[in-house]
Amino acid sequence: MPLLTGVTPDRVAAAARRVMARCDELARVSASSNGIERIYLSPEHARVNRLAAEWMRELGMRTRQDAAGNQLGRLERLVGGGLEPAAPALMLGSHLDTVRDAGRFDGIVGVLMALEVARLLRAPTDDDRYGVPLPFALEVVAFSDEEGARFGKALLGSSAVAGIWDDDWWALTDAEGTTLRQAFLEFGLDPARIGEAARRPAELVGYLEAHIEQGPELHRRGEALAVVTSIAAARRFQLVVEGESRHAGGTPYDMRRDALLGASEAALAVERICAAEHHIIGTVGQLEAFPGAVNIVPGEARLSLDLRGELDGERDRVWDEISRELDVIMGRRHLRWHSREVHNAPAVMCAPLLQDVVREGILSTLPGAMDEPTTLFSPAGHDGMSIGAVTDVGMLFLRNPDGISHHPDESVSGADVALGIRALAESVLQLAADRA
Amino acid sequence: MPLLTGVTPDRVAAAARRVMARCDELARVSASSNGIERIYLSPEHARVNRLAAEWMRELGMRTRQDAAGNQLGRLERLVGGGLEPAAPALMLGSHLDTVRDAGRFDGIVGVLMALEVARLLRAPTDDDRYGVPLPFALEVVAFSDEEGARFGKALLGSSAVAGIWDDDWWALTDAEGTTLRQAFLEFGLDPARIGEAARRPAELVGYLEAHIEQGPELHRRGEALAVVTSIAAARRFQLVVEGESRHAGGTPYDMRRDALLGASEAALAVERICAAEHHIIGTVGQLEAFPGAVNIVPGEARLSLDLRGELDGERDRVWDEISRELDVIMGRRHLRWHSREVHNAPAVMCAPLLQDVVREGILSTLPGAMDEPTTLFSPAGHDGMSIGAVTDVGMLFLRNPDGISHHPDESVSGADVALGIRALAESVLQLAADRA
Repeated sequence: MPLLTGVTPDRVAAAARRVMARCDELARVSASSNGIERIYLSPEHARVNRLAAEWMRELGMRTRQDAAGNQLGRLERLVGGGLEPAAPALMLGSHLDTVRDAGRFDGIVGVLMALEVARLLRAPTDDDRYGVPLPFALEVVAFSDEEGARFGKALLGSSAVAGIWDDDWWALTDAEGTTLRQAFLEFGLDPARIGEAARRPAELVGYLEAHIEQGPELHRRGEALAVVTSIAAARRFQLVVEGESRHAGGTPYDMRRDALLGASEAALAVERICAAEHHIIGTVGQLEAFPGAVNIVPGEARLSLDLRGELDGERDRVWDEISRELDVIMGRRHLRWHSREVHNAPAVMCAPLLQDVVREGILSTLPGAMDEPTTLFSPAGHDGMSIGAVTDVGMLFLRNPDGISHHPDESVSGADVALGIRALAESVLQLAADRA
Repeated sequence: MPLLTGVTPDRVAAAARRVMARCDELARVSASSNGIERIYLSPEHARVNRLAAEWMRELGMRTRQDAAGNQLGRLERLVGGGLEPAAPALMLGSHLDTVRDAGRFDGIVGVLMALEVARLLRAPTDDDRYGVPLPFALEVVAFSDEEGARFGKALLGSSAVAGIWDDDWWALTDAEGTTLRQAFLEFGLDPARIGEAARRPAELVGYLEAHIEQGPELHRRGEALAVVTSIAAARRFQLVVEGESRHAGGTPYDMRRDALLGASEAALAVERICAAEHHIIGTVGQLEAFPGAVNIVPGEARLSLDLRGELDGERDRVWDEISRELDVIMGRRHLRWHSREVHNAPAVMCAPLLQDVVREGILSTLPGAMDEPTTLFSPAGHDGMSIGAVTDVGMLFLRNPDGISHHPDESVSGADVALGIRALAESVLQLAADRA
C-alpha cells in the first residue's frame, strides 16, 4: 500500500527528467573528449562534487566533502516544527566516478535519484529550513571511487566511510606512477585525517542504493525494478601454464608441450563448467602467450580468471571443479599449471529488513503488476560491499536495456527512473513505518 | 662407392673435433652473456666474419666480405699444377647469425663443416698455393642473415647473393628504430653497392648445405644423416576475431560474444586439422585479448598462424580447411573474423641431381647401414630458399638429439659431424665425377 501520498505522477516525472538531464550534465565532466572518464581525485572528481554539493544545498541540505573525497548532504530529522540534530541517518546514494570510456548512468543515476527522493520527502521547519519528517535523518552520499579505475583497488571511497581503510593502500600508484598519498595531497585532502571519514554503526540506520542492473535480466523479463538479494564478490586468479618453447617448423605435434593450447582449453573449460551452473559466471579476460613469436611454439601462457557467484560456497565449489579440469587438461598435454589468487571477497547479503522495504517499495509503485517483485543477485560489485561492514545494506535495480554496462551505449529509460524514484521513496517510508 | 680415398678415420675425427671446438669459440661471440645472440650487422657479426676469414685463409682461400656482409672464401680449380681462375664454383656453406637465446650449431656447424670439406679436398699447386682438383672451383660461404632476428625479414644475406634484394627492405627497422640502411652504413657497408653481392647463374655450379635437422625425425629413426628433398615455406597470417566487450559480471553466457573464446577454439582447430595431416604443421605462437581487463569479456582477440607444408598445394588446401572451420566456429559464437597474409613463399625443391649426389655421399659414408638413405623435407627455412633463385640447391641434414632447435639445449654429436663431413666431401666428389 503506497505511503507516499500527495505526490502527483507529474511531479515524479519531472524528478525523473531532472535526473536524466543531470546525467547528461555530469557526462560532460570528463577527462576525455572521447567517452566519459572521471577517476578518483581528478579535477573532474572535484567538479562533480561541487555540482552535487550545489544540488544538495538547493534542497536545504547541509553538505560536506569528507576526508576521502566523498560528497555528502544531510537533512536532519524533523520533529515538531524543528530539527533534531545528530539523529541516526539513513544513507541513500551511489558513486560519481566512472571507468574509462564509461556510460553516463552507472552509479550516477543512483546519486541523482537519491537527491530526488530527498526532494520528495523533505518538509520545511517552522523557520524555513528543511528536514525529513521521518524517525531518522536522511543523508545522500556520492561516493568518490567505486570503480577503482585509477589505482586498481575498487571501493576506496566507501571503504573510508566504512572505516576499513588499509594503510597499505597509500602506496598504490596510478598509470603515471602517482601514489594514492600524493593524489590525496594534490586534491587538497590530508591523508592523516582519513579516519575522519569513517562512520560509527550507531550513526547509521542503513544504506539504500538504486543502481542500473549491469545485465539484461529485467529487460528480458519485461520488468522495470528488482530487489537485490546480495552482491556477489569475485575471486580472481592469475593462471600460468608452462610447457616448452620449441621451433614451430621442426617440432611434430606429439613432441609439443604447447602452453597456449593448454590455456585455450582452459578458457573453454571455464565457459563450459560455469555455463552449466546457475548464478556462477567465470570470465577469462586476459590471455597472452610467451615468447609470443610467430614461429615459436609457446612455452608459457598466462591468463586471468574472474569467478563470481551468488553464494561463496557455490563459487568455491566451481573453482575446485575448474581446478580439477585444468589438472586433466594439463596432464594430458604434459603441461604444468599454477595459480595465484589476487582477489577474494565474500558475497555481501542485503539485510533482510532492507530487502523487505525495497520489495514493499516496488509493490507500492507497481501495484498489481506482480505478486512478488523480481529478486536478483548482483554479479557486479557495489559500494554496499564495503558499507556492509558498518551498516545494513539494501539495493534496488533498474532495468538496463540490452544489459550493456561500462560502455558508452549503457542506458536506462526516464520512465524506469521515475518508477525507481517512487519505489525508493516508498522504501524509505516503509522503513520509517517499520521503525516508528 | 667411396670416392674420398686416402683420408683416414683419424683425420675426419680431427676435423669433427675442430668443428665442435670452433662452435664453442663462435658461441662466445655473443651480444648477450646470457645465451647466444648474434644478429645481422652487429659488432658480433663483424667478429665472426673476421674469425671465419682467418680460418679460410689458413686453408689457402682467397677471402672477401661481400656487399651484404656475407663472408666468402674461394679455392680455384686446380688444373695441372696451376690454378684456373674464374671457373664456375660449387658453394658450400650455411649462416653464422643466430636468433636470440640461440643454440651453437644452427647454421654455424654447416659453415665449419664446409671448411673441413675444403681442407680434405684441397691440393697444393706447384708454387705452394692451394686449389681443388675438381671440375669446378670451391667456395665456402658464411651467410650473414638467415634468421631475420634483427629486421624481421629473414634470408637477407642469401637474398643479396641470389640477386633478389628488394629496395623496400632498406626502410625496415630493428627494435631500436635503426633502419637497415643505417645499419649498413654503421657496419661500413655501402647500400648503393648491394648489387655487387649478386652472383650470376653462370658463376655457380650449385649450393650444398649441411644443417642440423630442426626436428627429431633422424633421432627417432636412429639415423645420423638424411637427404633433404625440399624446403617448405611458411604462409603466415595475422587473424583478428571480433566480438563485443561486455561487463564480466552482468553479461550471461548466452549474450556474450567473447572473442577470446573464439580465438581459443581457433587455436585448437589449427592443431586438430594439421595433426590429422601428413607433413603439415600449423602453429599459433601469438594470442592476445583486448581490452585485456580481468573483468571485461574480450571484444577482440588477435592471433598469429604459421602454416608449413612439404607441398604448396597441400598447405593451401589445409588453409582453406582451417578457414572453413573458423567460419563455423565464429558463426556459432556470433563473432566475425578476418585474416591478413603477412608472408607467403613457395616450397623450394632441392635439385634432383644434388639430391642424388647427397644420397650417394651418405651411402658411401655409411655403407651397408641402409639400402636407401632417409629423405626428409625441411619445415624450417634455410638460405637455400633464396639461393634457389640463382643456382641448384642440395642439403644434408644431421641428426639433432631430441630435435631441440633455436634453444641453448640444441645439440649435435661430434660423431655425427664426422659422418657429415665425410658424406659432404663424398657428395662433392660425386658431383665432380658426374660433371667430369
